[in-house]
Amino acid sequence: MDYKSLFSAQTIGMRASMIRELVATTKCIPGLISFAGGFPSPLTFPREILAKMYSEVILENGNDILQYGSSDGDTILKQELKKWEGMPDLPDSEILITSGATNGIYLYVKSLIESNDVIIIEAPSFLGSLIAFEGMSAKLVGIELDEEGIRTDLLEESFKKHGKKIKFLYLIPEFQNPSGITMTTARRKQVLEIASHYGVPILEDVPYEALRYSGEKPDSLYKMSKDSHPGLVTLIKSFSKILGPGLRLAYAIGHKELITKMGLWMQKVNVSVDCVTQRAVARMMSKGLLKPHIESIQAFYKPLRDTMLAALEKYMPETVSWTVPDGGMFIWVFLPEQLNADELFVSARENRVAFIPGSKFYPLGSETYNALRLNFSYPTAEQINTGVERLAHIIKEASGK
Amino acid sequence: MDYKSLFSAQTIGMRASMIRELVATTKCIPGLISFAGGFPSPLTFPREILAKMYSEVILENGNDILQYGSSDGDTILKQELKKWEGMPDLPDSEILITSGATNGIYLYVKSLIESNDVIIIEAPSFLGSLIAFEGMSAKLVGIELDEEGIRTDLLEESFKKHGKKIKFLYLIPEFQNPSGITMTTARRKQVLEIASHYGVPILEDVPYEALRYSGEKPDSLYKMSKDSHPGLVTLIKSFSKILGPGLRLAYAIGHKELITKMGLWMQKVNVSVDCVTQRAVARMMSKGLLKPHIESIQAFYKPLRDTMLAALEKYMPETVSWTVPDGGMFIWVFLPEQLNADELFVSARENRVAFIPGSKFYPLGSETYNALRLNFSYPTAEQINTGVERLAHIIKEASGK
Repeated sequence: MDYKSLFSAQTIGMRASMIRELVATTKCIPGLISFAGGFPSPLTFPREILAKMYSEVILENGNDILQYGSSDGDTILKQELKKWEGMPDLPDSEILITSGATNGIYLYVKSLIESNDVIIIEAPSFLGSLIAFEGMSAKLVGIELDEEGIRTDLLEESFKKHGKKIKFLYLIPEFQNPSGITMTTARRKQVLEIASHYGVPILEDVPYEALRYSGEKPDSLYKMSKDSHPGLVTLIKSFSKILGPGLRLAYAIGHKELITKMGLWMQKVNVSVDCVTQRAVARMMSKGLLKPHIESIQAFYKPLRDTMLAALEKYMPETVSWTVPDGGMFIWVFLPEQLNADELFVSARENRVAFIPGSKFYPLGSETYNALRLNFSYPTAEQINTGVERLAHIIKEASGK
Repeated sequence: MDYKSLFSAQTIGMRASMIRELVATTKCIPGLISFAGGFPSPLTFPREILAKMYSEVILENGNDILQYGSSDGDTILKQELKKWEGMPDLPDSEILITSGATNGIYLYVKSLIESNDVIIIEAPSFLGSLIAFEGMSAKLVGIELDEEGIRTDLLEESFKKHGKKIKFLYLIPEFQNPSGITMTTARRKQVLEIASHYGVPILEDVPYEALRYSGEKPDSLYKMSKDSHPGLVTLIKSFSKILGPGLRLAYAIGHKELITKMGLWMQKVNVSVDCVTQRAVARMMSKGLLKPHIESIQAFYKPLRDTMLAALEKYMPETVSWTVPDGGMFIWVFLPEQLNADELFVSARENRVAFIPGSKFYPLGSETYNALRLNFSYPTAEQINTGVERLAHIIKEASGK
């Protein structure tokens, strides 16, 4: 069979994650310290609790949860989520349980996007979403960030320029991947004003929300606009960084009409989320075990972030700067203008330290080369210290050339 | 927000499952006996075994299986599946683990289908697949079945007529839903000959394969064509009817190039299948617990099928006939030509018995009305007996009008 001639245009045009490929080139290098991945530390996974929850729900509710479940999600999990979100009166029809955040984003995009529709994104942004958007033949327009979040002057320009072709604005307002930046409350207000003025829906992706180590939590865009502009924002939250991404569990909260359509796509794509996993997590929440677990994760990651910030301060030359994230898993490093992080990656790997070059987080054709992303959630404090020292050495060498 | 004006054309065109809506109208009717659903009996779910497997794998392998998993599936589960399928040498790259059979079918369709491509299906066929295909803007062409399976004379005509517009042929060759028919080996050979001659790939969906109560198992189309026409057939198998559909676990075996593309779509759609569930099932297989469990399910369902066949024999008028399935969950009943099962459904519901009218299993516009589907996996033997008696009574009444 010659499948090449049978593949759909979207399938032929798909690209795999370049990050995966890059990370693969760093495997099996003895002694390599990697700041490249975006993995949570397995030391934070609540193994004992989950083993107990799964076992209990299967024994007690097996007849129910091993049967076909609702495409829009388990009502018992929805109850727990509504309590957790402090919105006990939210109608069930405004929540959809999804097989991870990526699945929720896919269903959102599938509900809205036609070929050549425009999606406005932060630049840089999460590569996984970018390639998913491109895979649906959408056109990506990246808007620069400053230290307060997406630049609203450029955003408004873009809204004017692309007009009705724009289907939505994709934002990661908290500890953004890859930049680590959190959008300020003032900036959030501006963004909501502009988006509602131009009638552009917002997809608010907050995978790292629970991983806050300092600073005050600002209200989500969803919460800020719930009463003034109902339905404008769809919020996507995930359990991946809290319980473990192997579980594939997240949820979307938004406009009833949109959530309904996403649920219809869920019927076709997955039928439903794994019902056993849904109920196991609901049980963990109902027993009050989620909050203390999150506190233990925060306590685990905070010293790693602090170690990385201190190491950057200690080893990096003055020409290098970086963001100081209040949470999440990433720090974004700005290099002197003449340096290219794609080239630096090769010499860094030779010196047994890895990161992701900043260019990988931009839509094709609008890359920036003098930045890089460091992950601090996976390595140990000792590795962070040694790895940053190695990296600083390479940057100094490259700068001297 | 006015989402109506933002939805994509495919989203606007989506229809929900009419079966779900029909089944919903039979809920809360006291004493109603339903042959309408397609649910496995919860009495067949291996609760104790699964509770143990989940708990053990999370405790022993939590660091691994709670982490991000491979988009094409867990290698340990693949090992077990290859042994189970009697193909220990099958490359891992020819298997994709999916979130249920529907997810596998979705990824297959997504890899191949453009708007207005043609998919050839059996008529009647599984409604879930039909609405998924329609949802991707494909054109469905139904080919009649006889007692040996899809009619190859009509199939060849259709291949000639639609030529290059055809992307694939979708078949449920074993205990077909809804007809209960199993394709004979002779018919399988003919189908493979024609499909390979015209270069049309086959998607072979066998969700009920393990539920065989009588007769000899024919080789799958996949197995029959593996050496002579490698890559022609993609096989989809599911754990839904064996362990419980709440689990969302299935797998696809096929051409490496196609499986690779399906895996890339998986990255965008779900990232991966729930890794905990994959490993729990792998453990159940490695401990040799799957085979005896399947035997116990077969022993559970066989008497139900036999009871329904005996009741049909006992109560139905001579003008009614039906298929005699060797397995699965459904019997297809042919009514006298002047009867309309859509109308019969209403009077049946009033008489506290439900089924699915045959018309629901055809592409829109090519319905047949004088047939209906009965499910025997969910009701008890007593309910089957009483329900068939009620149904026969209504058919006799309607025939007499």
